[in-house]
Amino acid sequence: MSRISYVNGRYQHHLDAAVHIEDRGYLFGDGVYEVVTVVNGQMVDEDGHLNRLERSLSELTIKWPVTRSALGVILREVARRNKLRNGLLYFQVTRGVARRSHEFPKNVASALVVSAKHIPKLNNAPDPEGVSVITIPDIRWDRRDIKTIALLPNCLGKQQAKEVGAYEAWQVDPDGTVTEGTSSNAWIITQDGELVTRPPAHTILNGITRMRIIEIARQQGVPFVERPFSVEEAYNAREAFVSSASSFAKPVTKIDDQVVGNGHMGELTELLAQKYLEFVNQPGPA
Amino acid sequence: MSRISYVNGRYQHHLDAAVHIEDRGYLFGDGVYEVVTVVNGQMVDEDGHLNRLERSLSELTIKWPVTRSALGVILREVARRNKLRNGLLYFQVTRGVARRSHEFPKNVASALVVSAKHIPKLNNAPDPEGVSVITIPDIRWDRRDIKTIALLPNCLGKQQAKEVGAYEAWQVDPDGTVTEGTSSNAWIITQDGELVTRPPAHTILNGITRMRIIEIARQQGVPFVERPFSVEEAYNAREAFVSSASSFAKPVTKIDDQVVGNGHMGELTELLAQKYLEFVNQPGPA
Repeated sequence: MSRISYVNGRYQHHLDAAVHIEDRGYLFGDGVYEVVTVVNGQMVDEDGHLNRLERSLSELTIKWPVTRSALGVILREVARRNKLRNGLLYFQVTRGVARRSHEFPKNVASALVVSAKHIPKLNNAPDPEGVSVITIPDIRWDRRDIKTIALLPNCLGKQQAKEVGAYEAWQVDPDGTVTEGTSSNAWIITQDGELVTRPPAHTILNGITRMRIIEIARQQGVPFVERPFSVEEAYNAREAFVSSASSFAKPVTKIDDQVVGNGHMGELTELLAQKYLEFVNQPGPA
Repeated sequence: MSRISYVNGRYQHHLDAAVHIEDRGYLFGDGVYEVVTVVNGQMVDEDGHLNRLERSLSELTIKWPVTRSALGVILREVARRNKLRNGLLYFQVTRGVARRSHEFPKNVASALVVSAKHIPKLNNAPDPEGVSVITIPDIRWDRRDIKTIALLPNCLGKQQAKEVGAYEAWQVDPDGTVTEGTSSNAWIITQDGELVTRPPAHTILNGITRMRIIEIARQQGVPFVERPFSVEEAYNAREAFVSSASSFAKPVTKIDDQVVGNGHMGELTELLAQKYLEFVNQPGPA
């Protein structure tokens, strides 16, 4: 089956899906994006993702390319045309096409691109062996709370991880605290059994999966605190995991050269991963 | 005359010039660029720009899209097809097209786009009234020495300047020193007649025009030092100016609400701007 993508009003064969060379996304990274998981044909946390898109657009004063409700229709149509049962919907909005000049162009329509990706085993239970992460300096800009497409430092960090066989790189601020992964949020569970993740601020992106897991933790009565944690604290944690729209809650069993806990998925991580899976697998539109 | 742009091997009408939606430049800002001035049909400092491109590509381990000499041929051909006498050649190289995933794709060809812009009055002498700049916090990432297309913070800064009628925004690090403009380097001349600009490091982009002006200053016997300078020092400077491939040396006569010197282009700025103009106007291939 050939993939279908949406580009500025048209559903096209993915191979032909193109944007102008003076789209400001291409010239400047002047755009924002979202990735929504689709499980059993249903979007997960659609409202959360559209709320965050609204915030990103507002922070950068980029106009909506279509109305919010029209975007919902387009997302469903891309899913339908791709027969997307399990996978991801990717969509990005840029400030539009204009002669190259740094300042915002006037009277230009925002650009919208939507594509789909099949991931048949997306909602499998996590591998109890977990994954490893490395720690690297966080070299990004000061507005990591905006989900922009200017992701070059994230790409460089992820590549560093891949080159040493790790799944993710946890970025570390000059004060020694972990901010987040290059495409996921970072979590630990202390020796006292407390779930810890960094509070949302300009230093991290507030993950939609992150917020959902917080809600689940509260429902499950898991002791929880939002605060920065250091690399040292992570080394000595009882459990650790990462979260993202595509990774769900994924156990981390090694950080740099340090084995976390007993080297296997911990109890609380398993509980949260299991409850998150139940959440995404629940039937019917959210 | 319709403009012609070059995209991955083809010379195309500019309106039709497009790249795939999964070009990593569009998805991630994963690419680099250069802007070369053309004066009287000749490229200015072609070697300097290609040297810097080579460095940017190398820092990000992006492959050359074509050989360096082939790129030179393509630049000349785009200039020729656009009958470009005075203006700019813009070219960008991205890591190429691949399914969206942060780490570097394997066996993917880099993408190359080249376009031209006519600026008939490009090499006029500067307006002695000068321009105004504002100062803003520098919120960019830690590798400003790489000329990447991930320019969103620069766009935000330039927009802030435009909104208050200023030409440029000088970005200021937490220690109170000016790094550079959003698309230009920053210079002052102290009350003692010393020319000052920030040394190249990860904190700024080492402008090709910047390097050329340093050479001219040395030839002219202008006292010169590379060091960071504070906003306060800039307010109290005798003269100030910005430099870039398209602005040349342009006098700055107001910084925030502070008039610089007597509010008109200063003597040393005029000398350097004049000598730079002579340099770009010199006949024959460099």
